[in-house]
Amino acid sequence: MKRVGVLAREGLTEAGPAITALVGWLRARGAPVLLETSTAALLDGACDGCRVVSGEEVARDADAVVILGGDGTLLAASDLFAGDGPPVLGVNFGKLGFLTEVAIEELYPALEAVLEDRFESEERRLLHAALKRGEKTLTEADVLNDVVVTKAALSRIVELEVTIDGRFVSAFRADGLIVSTTTGSTAYNLAAGGPIIHPGLPAVVLTPICPHTLTYRPLVVGDESVIDVRLCDTREVEVHLTFDGQRGVALSSRDRVRITRSDRRLRLVRSPNRDYFEVLRTKLKWGESTARRR
Amino acid sequence: MKRVGVLAREGLTEAGPAITALVGWLRARGAPVLLETSTAALLDGACDGCRVVSGEEVARDADAVVILGGDGTLLAASDLFAGDGPPVLGVNFGKLGFLTEVAIEELYPALEAVLEDRFESEERRLLHAALKRGEKTLTEADVLNDVVVTKAALSRIVELEVTIDGRFVSAFRADGLIVSTTTGSTAYNLAAGGPIIHPGLPAVVLTPICPHTLTYRPLVVGDESVIDVRLCDTREVEVHLTFDGQRGVALSSRDRVRITRSDRRLRLVRSPNRDYFEVLRTKLKWGESTARRR
Amino acid sequence: MKRVGVLAREGLTEAGPAITALVGWLRARGAPVLLETSTAALLDGACDGCRVVSGEEVARDADAVVILGGDGTLLAASDLFAGDGPPVLGVNFGKLGFLTEVAIEELYPALEAVLEDRFESEERRLLHAALKRGEKTLTEADVLNDVVVTKAALSRIVELEVTIDGRFVSAFRADGLIVSTTTGSTAYNLAAGGPIIHPGLPAVVLTPICPHTLTYRPLVVGDESVIDVRLCDTREVEVHLTFDGQRGVALSSRDRVRITRSDRRLRLVRSPNRDYFEVLRTKLKWGESTARRR
Amino acid sequence: MKRVGVLAREGLTEAGPAITALVGWLRARGAPVLLETSTAALLDGACDGCRVVSGEEVARDADAVVILGGDGTLLAASDLFAGDGPPVLGVNFGKLGFLTEVAIEELYPALEAVLEDRFESEERRLLHAALKRGEKTLTEADVLNDVVVTKAALSRIVELEVTIDGRFVSAFRADGLIVSTTTGSTAYNLAAGGPIIHPGLPAVVLTPICPHTLTYRPLVVGDESVIDVRLCDTREVEVHLTFDGQRGVALSSRDRVRITRSDRRLRLVRSPNRDYFEVLRTKLKWGESTARRR
Repeated sequence: MKRVGVLAREGLTEAGPAITALVGWLRARGAPVLLETSTAALLDGACDGCRVVSGEEVARDADAVVILGGDGTLLAASDLFAGDGPPVLGVNFGKLGFLTEVAIEELYPALEAVLEDRFESEERRLLHAALKRGEKTLTEADVLNDVVVTKAALSRIVELEVTIDGRFVSAFRADGLIVSTTTGSTAYNLAAGGPIIHPGLPAVVLTPICPHTLTYRPLVVGDESVIDVRLCDTREVEVHLTFDGQRGVALSSRDRVRITRSDRRLRLVRSPNRDYFEVLRTKLKWGESTARRR
Repeated sequence: MKRVGVLAREGLTEAGPAITALVGWLRARGAPVLLETSTAALLDGACDGCRVVSGEEVARDADAVVILGGDGTLLAASDLFAGDGPPVLGVNFGKLGFLTEVAIEELYPALEAVLEDRFESEERRLLHAALKRGEKTLTEADVLNDVVVTKAALSRIVELEVTIDGRFVSAFRADGLIVSTTTGSTAYNLAAGGPIIHPGLPAVVLTPICPHTLTYRPLVVGDESVIDVRLCDTREVEVHLTFDGQRGVALSSRDRVRITRSDRRLRLVRSPNRDYFEVLRTKLKWGESTARRR
Repeated sequence: MKRVGVLAREGLTEAGPAITALVGWLRARGAPVLLETSTAALLDGACDGCRVVSGEEVARDADAVVILGGDGTLLAASDLFAGDGPPVLGVNFGKLGFLTEVAIEELYPALEAVLEDRFESEERRLLHAALKRGEKTLTEADVLNDVVVTKAALSRIVELEVTIDGRFVSAFRADGLIVSTTTGSTAYNLAAGGPIIHPGLPAVVLTPICPHTLTYRPLVVGDESVIDVRLCDTREVEVHLTFDGQRGVALSSRDRVRITRSDRRLRLVRSPNRDYFEVLRTKLKWGESTARRR
Repeated sequence: MKRVGVLAREGLTEAGPAITALVGWLRARGAPVLLETSTAALLDGACDGCRVVSGEEVARDADAVVILGGDGTLLAASDLFAGDGPPVLGVNFGKLGFLTEVAIEELYPALEAVLEDRFESEERRLLHAALKRGEKTLTEADVLNDVVVTKAALSRIVELEVTIDGRFVSAFRADGLIVSTTTGSTAYNLAAGGPIIHPGLPAVVLTPICPHTLTYRPLVVGDESVIDVRLCDTREVEVHLTFDGQRGVALSSRDRVRITRSDRRLRLVRSPNRDYFEVLRTKLKWGESTARRR
């Protein structure tokens, strides 16, 4: 029998009843449940046959994981489950929920497919970003959505220089730059004017934020590219690097961010009754005719 | 004889020779010169017949002022000279110089026109912005370019609610919002995707920064509008209000920024040989055909 | 008692019951009804006390006119009612209905306000466009929405030169150019990437269609501007000029379109329970958060 | 010795001297020259050792082809040379010349590399488009840049429905739709707001033209996708399908355009001293800082 991990956003008390029901449903089917420690605290009553374990143990031992929260919850958890980890089923308790696309009422058919081993999953490639100062790597991380270099609110514009595979691409002044995966193309990239890219494509998109260069356009390149973003000069300018909008570090003049394809992928359990384009339409209202909506 | 004020960006040593030449040129024509204190330090040698005075005295006593620096210098000085102050002639020593449109070699014909009282000037209306917390006004300022509400680099998106003349306009999630004068329409507004608005129009433009709402578009309204921007909720979000990109303050949940037309205008001396559209073309490369540029 | 004109899109049989009810409602209140000839054909049964007259007579004799159809119907009728004509109340039977903003169920409160002379109206300024070949004016018209110069589907791009008040603005290559009123700013202009402009502003917006010039941006100028759009060269290129998307003429090389403010305005009866921003939100879904729409 | 084909845009008399010099240069090196019939007419004087042949014979017998003209010339010729044809070197005599990227002065080093068999080439995948009416295929073609469905100048907007691999993507109203290769991404796609896509990616981009749907964004999908564009209803609307902007056919209601990856690729000789990003910067002025251009 498949072992199912359950993990919710810390403190998401409104998910308590849903988690309690979910755990009951899994136990009734005889599925061993791995309950992440902080998630166990949200449970209403005890759970026979549940093991309360750390996130790392969920990643190691579960055959599938249900994550309850918003996209931020899934982004934060993706590092835990990418690579050799179990496939992930995101249930939306957040605002937009593009990644956590399954609504709570759709969860059970999806889980049933998982338990009966007739589910489909898709692999989302992560990007690796390393912050270099001279020859030293100061920090590095894998991201599911995007790596963003951006100025602070009170700073003047930042000047960035981009090279790809060692070849100079452009130097430009802007509020910042988004380097996004195809998965992230519907997130911040879209808000900044970037295109939607099907997750099946081995691509990365570079989208400037408010470029002070009217000719600038988003650029889509292969994900095997080695992308270097160099901060030209930061006198008076406070600049930050953020990973998936979750964690940030301050940059100094001449710092370089090197972005490459990660070896790891995150497996997402596919909703049995929605395809990618339907998610686009229902979540983003993409391509929906205003005329039809009256 | 006209009294001419001279003011440069603090520490702009490369403008020293130009200022020395300018002051000599003015003195040779018998024009009394009012040299702003920190600008006097840039002068190469002494200046007979120059009065070294504060910026406020320049504003009070000069019949025209030459400002040397970039657009930031002019923005910083606009508060000093708007209203009853003398007309201002911006000489570009910065990068873009949309406001300080006169190149140093064009300065003398423009100044000659000023001394002979046959110059044209145009009045640029300022916007007034007041930060309100409950009934209290925490800070307020007049801006020449724009008032910007924007999230910090490491923060999640901000949720804003806009009303105009007390009527609800929209609530939206974005990186921020720019409320720009027509003068500012070619500055940050343009980088964020806003339109160019001729400075002769009594208009204000509201342009969102990276809106997480695909339907959002820049909105141009009359400058007699009373615009209120309310911060919906700032849990975990650091949000700032900036005036002309020069000065910023932190906002708290439920703070409100009220933007109205200022009573004051800044008089800009018009370049004798360039019109507005030429400045657009040469500074922004606006509307220039790429095909023609080979 | 106010005389009310009634005019529907020709052949709009599904509006028959609504027109019949409307006419009955007006007659019950003792209001004389002026029924436009082709509209009378849609009526279910006879109408006591209705005068069946031409559109021109409706314009001359009615104190207010109800127009049933889509925005195209109102655009086509605007020429008839602009200037000294009666105020117009557009009832939406079309797809989008931005101009014909009143839904049929909202009609009666609006009409009641009209009959009791306590309604508000707003004046929408028309633009005048004249097609010039050398010194000759080939055709001219007033438009409520826009004047569009555009290439035919099979043609290569068109090269246009724009001057405003005799000063050169730009020459650019594109699929075409939209010169739009503030009223038209929410129509074709919006689809081409132009801003929304409040109808209270005395403004005109120039928005290129697919410009082959990455630096091009929409330009908003005062409506007192004299705008000339000259076709640079049309070898092999078929180019058309359209008025409000309703009527078109073919252009030849070196033809010039001169666009100026019209003396005429169209009076629109304001809906008693919707303001401009609400129409933006409900019709365009403008500024609506996708997150909220789940 | 390599046989070199030479083909110019018909009637391009200003290329006469360049062609004469080119042919002389090739003959001096002992390279057999295959001169396309209409190109031979542009030659100044006779050519010893030149064979004057049809375009088809050039495609069959040449080891490399020089094409002189603009991008239109290369697009028109691409059908001739794609698949098993010789690699192509485009020399720019047109306006923009993104494909015909080699300037005449750069031609000889490039050709020298070709003759010495030390040149690099890159393969550009073509798209196949077939116009279907019911079960019948009315016409079909391979394109190097794009397939465009677009309304005529005087027509109202067109309503299109897109499916990919049989799954419904969206129905929307617009002026039209561009389905572009990566090669075409810098052409019409860019003018309509689409992203730049590196030609190494196996991708296709769908970009609407002036969508009347504010939520619409360009969509990038894998080139193995089967894309169907169906015309919803064309009452009163004249709609055309164009192949590479070179050839067009009229569409009827319910016609369907099926777009798939072609088996054929065009081999482009790579300029020895320019990479892809340099061409972007110099031809499109892409990413160039306006500040730097003063």
